Amino acid sequence: MQMNRLWGIFFMAYDAINASYFYMSSDTPCYDSLCHKNREISLISKTAGILSWDQETYMPKGGISYRAKQLSWLSGKVHELRTSDSFRKALEGAEEESGNSIYTANLRELRHQYNRATKLPQCLVEKNSEATSLGKAAWSEAREKSDFSIFAPHLTELLAIAREKAELWGYDDEPYDALLADYERGAKTSEVVSIFDEVSDELATTAQAACEKSLSTPADLLQGHYPISDQQILNREIVEEMGFSFDYGRIDTTAHPFCTTLGPKDIRLTTRYLEDNFTSSLFGILHEAGHGLYEQGLPADQNGLPVGNAVSLGIHESQSRLWENHVGRSRAFWEKWLPRAQEIFPHLNKLNLDTFLSAINRAEKSYIRVESDEATYDLHILLRFGLEREMLNGKIQVKDVPAAWNERFEHLMGMTPPDDAHGCLQDIHWSMGGLGYFSTYTLGNFNAAQLYQHTQKDAEIAAACAKAQYTPLLEWLQKNIHAKGSSLLPQDLMRAATGEATNARHHLEHLKRRFLEA
Amino acid sequence: MQMNRLWGIFFMAYDAINASYFYMSSDTPCYDSLCHKNREISLISKTAGILSWDQETYMPKGGISYRAKQLSWLSGKVHELRTSDSFRKALEGAEEESGNSIYTANLRELRHQYNRATKLPQCLVEKNSEATSLGKAAWSEAREKSDFSIFAPHLTELLAIAREKAELWGYDDEPYDALLADYERGAKTSEVVSIFDEVSDELATTAQAACEKSLSTPADLLQGHYPISDQQILNREIVEEMGFSFDYGRIDTTAHPFCTTLGPKDIRLTTRYLEDNFTSSLFGILHEAGHGLYEQGLPADQNGLPVGNAVSLGIHESQSRLWENHVGRSRAFWEKWLPRAQEIFPHLNKLNLDTFLSAINRAEKSYIRVESDEATYDLHILLRFGLEREMLNGKIQVKDVPAAWNERFEHLMGMTPPDDAHGCLQDIHWSMGGLGYFSTYTLGNFNAAQLYQHTQKDAEIAAACAKAQYTPLLEWLQKNIHAKGSSLLPQDLMRAATGEATNARHHLEHLKRRFLEA
Repeated sequence: MQMNRLWGIFFMAYDAINASYFYMSSDTPCYDSLCHKNREISLISKTAGILSWDQETYMPKGGISYRAKQLSWLSGKVHELRTSDSFRKALEGAEEESGNSIYTANLRELRHQYNRATKLPQCLVEKNSEATSLGKAAWSEAREKSDFSIFAPHLTELLAIAREKAELWGYDDEPYDALLADYERGAKTSEVVSIFDEVSDELATTAQAACEKSLSTPADLLQGHYPISDQQILNREIVEEMGFSFDYGRIDTTAHPFCTTLGPKDIRLTTRYLEDNFTSSLFGILHEAGHGLYEQGLPADQNGLPVGNAVSLGIHESQSRLWENHVGRSRAFWEKWLPRAQEIFPHLNKLNLDTFLSAINRAEKSYIRVESDEATYDLHILLRFGLEREMLNGKIQVKDVPAAWNERFEHLMGMTPPDDAHGCLQDIHWSMGGLGYFSTYTLGNFNAAQLYQHTQKDAEIAAACAKAQYTPLLEWLQKNIHAKGSSLLPQDLMRAATGEATNARHHLEHLKRRFLEA
Repeated sequence: MQMNRLWGIFFMAYDAINASYFYMSSDTPCYDSLCHKNREISLISKTAGILSWDQETYMPKGGISYRAKQLSWLSGKVHELRTSDSFRKALEGAEEESGNSIYTANLRELRHQYNRATKLPQCLVEKNSEATSLGKAAWSEAREKSDFSIFAPHLTELLAIAREKAELWGYDDEPYDALLADYERGAKTSEVVSIFDEVSDELATTAQAACEKSLSTPADLLQGHYPISDQQILNREIVEEMGFSFDYGRIDTTAHPFCTTLGPKDIRLTTRYLEDNFTSSLFGILHEAGHGLYEQGLPADQNGLPVGNAVSLGIHESQSRLWENHVGRSRAFWEKWLPRAQEIFPHLNKLNLDTFLSAINRAEKSYIRVESDEATYDLHILLRFGLEREMLNGKIQVKDVPAAWNERFEHLMGMTPPDDAHGCLQDIHWSMGGLGYFSTYTLGNFNAAQLYQHTQKDAEIAAACAKAQYTPLLEWLQKNIHAKGSSLLPQDLMRAATGEATNARHHLEHLKRRFLEA
C-alpha cells in the first residue's frame, strides 16, 4: 500500500477538526485569542518534537539533511508566530483584561517569553545557528581526538554570542542570570551560588568518605549476562507499577536516555542497555519515568499554554532524581523488586539484599559525569557551574579552560583527568550553546531530597513507601507539583509544597544516611 | 535529560539553514518562486508523513486525538499554501516563461494540482471530512458485526460527495474519470475498461484452472514455527540484496504493510509477521521494498516538485508486484534463497525446491482480497471496479450493494461470501472516500508483467536474473522508470520503457506460465 497517496484522503478528513479546534469566548477575547495562538505555537513545537524523537530513535542516517530542513521550517514557523504583530496585540490586549490566578500566570509567562523572543535580532539568531552547527561538529571531532584546540575557537565564538544574548535579554548581576532564565524561571545566579556554597565543602567531604567506605564493595558484583529483552520486561513492570501509563507513553532505545513530550497524552521515554549490567538501563528508565510522570500529570486543561508546561529544569530534575535515587535505590524498593529481578536473572540469586544494595549504592570517583554515582555527581556540577560563570564573566579565557578544569578536578576529586576527552570536552552542552543549563542538575538533586523527605512526614505515604507502594507518594506529587504546572515560579512552588525554598541540607543529609550510615 | 527544553537550542540552530534553503535564480523567476513554494508544501506534507508513520508504528493509543489536531494543522497549512494567491501568481507567471521538458512537466502537474485543489469549496472539504471520519467508524463497526445497514447511510453520503467532487473537477465520460485522476494521472476510465475487458474472461478461466491444478498441493506445506526475529534476519538480507538501501530506509511492524516516504533519503517499509508462516512477512516486505526502490530511485534534483514524485499508483504497484511476484516467486530466486531460508529455519529442509515453489505459488479461491494469491487477485479487483463505476453512475443503489457483490462473486468464483464482512465490507477504502483507487492494483499487475517481460529480452538482465542477481534489472528500472519520476504520464512512460502502452496480455501469459505450465 502506498501511504503517501492515501494521506491525501486523510488530509481532507482532518480539515473539519482544524476548523473547530480553537474556540472563542467573549469575556476575555484578547486572552482567548492569545491562548489560541499559543496553542498553535505549542502544537508546532510538539510536531518538531516528533521529528526529533524519530531522528534519535529510528531515522536512517540518510534522513538527516532533509530532517534538518523540516525542523528548520517548523522552527521558523514558531519564531514567526511568536514574534508576530498579531501575537503582540493579543498579548497587550490581554494585559488590559483581568482573570484568575491561572490567567495571570499564563500572561506572566507569555510576556516573559515574548520579550525574550523579540529581543534577539535575526542576525544574531542566524549567527548563533551557524556557530552551534559548526560547534557541535568541532566538539565531536575534538572529543574524539581529545584535542581541545579544535574546539577552542568555536567555544570562544559561542561564549561571545552567549554574552551578547545575555546583554540583549538583560540581567541584574551577571550574564549567567540571563542564560539561566531559559531553564530555571525566576532564579538568580546569586541565589544558586548561595544554595550551592552552603554545602559544597560538605558535599566534597561526604563524597570522599562515601568513596572510602565503598572500597570494601567489589566493583563487579553485578557483572553478568542480562539479555536486553529480559531487561525490558523488568523495566516495564517497574515503570508501570510506579504509575507511568503506557496508554499515554512508551519506551524506546537511544544512545543517550531522554524523555520527551510529543502530545499531552504521548510521553516518550528512552534508555540504553548494557548487556553486562541491567542496572544501567533500569536506573536510566526510572530517571526518565520520573520526568514522564511529571509530564503525564501536568494540568490537561492548560495544555499548550505556559501553565500547562513544567515550570523549570530544576523541578523537572527533582522528579527524575526522586524516583531514580530516593525510591529506586532504597532498601524498601529492592525488598520488593530484588526477588522479581532474581526470577528474571537467576544468577542474581547469589546476592542477598544487603550486598545488592551496597552494589547499587557504591561510590567511586570517576572522570565522566554521566557515569558518576549519587555521592560524587554534584562535584562534577559544581566544577562546571563555577567555570561557566567565570568564562561568561571574562575571568577565565577559553585557552585556559583545560588547565583550569584539571586543576579544579584534582582539587575536588584528588585525581587529574588523563586527557581533555575525560575532562572539559566530555559534555555536548557548550557546543550547542547550552550555557546556564548545568546548575539545574544539582538544583534538581536538592529539590528531590527536600520533596521526598517532606513526603515522608506523612504517615500514610511513609508507610506505603516502606512497603514499596508508591501510589500515595505519586498522588502527593501530582497534587503538589505536577498539577501546578507553571502556575507558580519554582521557588514559590517549593515553598508551597514543602514550606521552604530549595534547601541543600536535605540532599546532604540524604547522602550521609545512604552512604555513611548504611 | 529533558529534550523539550534542549530543542529550544536546536531550534535556533536550524534558523540559518532555513534562511539559505531556498534559492532564486534569474532566468525564470516565477518558475523558481513556484518551485520554492511547492518544495515548502512538499516539506510540510512529508512532515505529516512522519506523524502518520509514527501513528501506525509506535504511538501510544492516548496520542490519537492530539495527533489528529497536529495532522489537521499541517493539512490546513498545505491547503492554504496550495490555494494561495501567491501560488497562483507564481504559477501564472511561470506559464508565461519557458524551459526544458522537465520544466514543462512540472508546470503541467502543478497546474493540474492547483486546478483540482481550488475547485473544491471549503464547505465540501469539511463535509467530506466529517463524512469520512464518521464513515470509517461506521465501517469498522459494520464489518465487526457484519451488518451492512450500519454502513449504508454513510456510503450513500460518501457516494454523493464523490459525485459532487467529480462534477466540480469535471470529466469527459463518467464520474469515475475525475476520481481516478487522483491516483492514475492521464488515465480515462474507458481506457481502463478496455484494458480490463480484453482479458477478464481469460483471467477468470486461468484462475479457475490454476485453482484446480493447485488442489494437489496441500495447503499446510509451509506451516511451522518461525520466530519473528529470524524472519527479520532473512527479510533484511533479501531486501538489502535487492538493492534497497538501509542507510536511506528501514523496516518496521504494522497491522497493514505499507511504504511511505518521509524524506528523499528516508523511505520506511512496514510488514506484519505470522509466526506460523514466514512467507507472509517476506512477500509483504518484497512488495513494499519494490515500492521503496522506486521511491529511492526518484530524481533527487526534482525532490519536492511533481517530477520528483512517483507518477501514479498503477506504476507504483508495478514496481511492488514485479519484485514480489516476478522476482520473489520465481524458481531462480529460490534456487538461491531456499538454502539460506533452510539454514535459518531448519524444518524447511523437508521441502525440495519444486515442492516449495508449488507451496508459494498455490492458487485457491478465497473471500478476502488481501489474502488472495496471484492467480485470483485480479478477480477481486474486477468485481469492485465494476461495482464502483455503477455506484457512481447511479446504476446500482447502495442498499443493493451486498446482493450485487455476492451475486457477482458467485459468478466469478463459484462461491458466495458467508456474510458481508467477507464480502462488500472487507476493505476500508470506500469508508475513507477512496473511490477510484482499486483499479490501479490490477493496472499495476499488468504493468509489472509487461515491464518484467520486456527486461528479459535483454540478454544480460535475463542471464543475471536466472542466477538471482538483480543489479542489472534494478539498473534498468532505475533508468527507465524510477529516474523519470512524473516527467511522463503513465502510459507515455510505459510506451517509452517497453514500446507499448499497458497491455494486459503479458500478465495473462505470465499467470498461465506460472500456474498452468509449471
